[in-house]
Amino acid sequence: MRRASFADWPCSIAQTVDLLGDGWTPLVMREAFYGIRRFDEFQHELGIPRNTLTDRLRRLVDEGLLEKEMYDGQPRRYEYLLTDKGRDFFGVLAAMSRWGDRWLAGDDGAPVILHHATCAQDTHAEVVCAACMEPMRAEDSSMRIGPGYPERLKSRPEVQRRFAID
Amino acid sequence: MRRASFADWPCSIAQTVDLLGDGWTPLVMREAFYGIRRFDEFQHELGIPRNTLTDRLRRLVDEGLLEKEMYDGQPRRYEYLLTDKGRDFFGVLAAMSRWGDRWLAGDDGAPVILHHATCAQDTHAEVVCAACMEPMRAEDSSMRIGPGYPERLKSRPEVQRRFAID
Repeated sequence: MRRASFADWPCSIAQTVDLLGDGWTPLVMREAFYGIRRFDEFQHELGIPRNTLTDRLRRLVDEGLLEKEMYDGQPRRYEYLLTDKGRDFFGVLAAMSRWGDRWLAGDDGAPVILHHATCAQDTHAEVVCAACMEPMRAEDSSMRIGPGYPERLKSRPEVQRRFAID
Repeated sequence: MRRASFADWPCSIAQTVDLLGDGWTPLVMREAFYGIRRFDEFQHELGIPRNTLTDRLRRLVDEGLLEKEMYDGQPRRYEYLLTDKGRDFFGVLAAMSRWGDRWLAGDDGAPVILHHATCAQDTHAEVVCAACMEPMRAEDSSMRIGPGYPERLKSRPEVQRRFAID
């Protein structure tokens, strides 16, 4: 069964989720952040079926998070390198990791911790407001229609309701 | 085909990804943050197949992100309310939303913006280091074995390699 596509929804969460698919993709990205670059290494580290890995790497290259570069010409062999877009995805994984550490880890604590070279601390990620740097919590936040919201949808009653437009 | 389970991996990203599954789950959570509580509302807003929604809501209740509460006894009807664990997931969605706004949105800009009541600004989320509050970027961060990493795995060569243990 073809999975539902969220790529055309006017929502950056839906679009990101569409790109991530079923869970292997964020783990392939995680491996890239651990320094993994080659198909066989991804395959070995994740124990991912080869055809699944081929599919996920192709998607990540198509979407511009990884770029494929030849590192050996005889026979042709490729590495998958993080682009700026891919590298910026680190924040999403760091936020997931923090949430998981807090709510899913056992009594011993976080399985993996982040070391931040900038301040030389063992630390974790926090999601804050870019304007005031206070934590971005659901109870202090609301969603509003942004400049990229499709004009033709704005007048729909359910959209007005969703964004509590007066 | 049963999908791969990442729940037992010693990694909070893998465990979070396992919980999210195929993409519908974060969108169900998104709806909860928009104030949606009832089955038919989730179904209507997302256009999600009813059996898929049943499955995702059950998982979110089992995992403690939502709680099911009866709001009408005749016939019995239930609402799905965010728990503290569920509410804290907002940060992950906000980080996804920011990444999507930056890298997937069209020329018009973000489809949806966050308004932060704390500072009364239209803003976006940023993922920072909890220690120094500087951005948590891949190039400044490295992963280290945490207190919850399984003892029996630490001596394995691939684990030593992964965490660059000397």
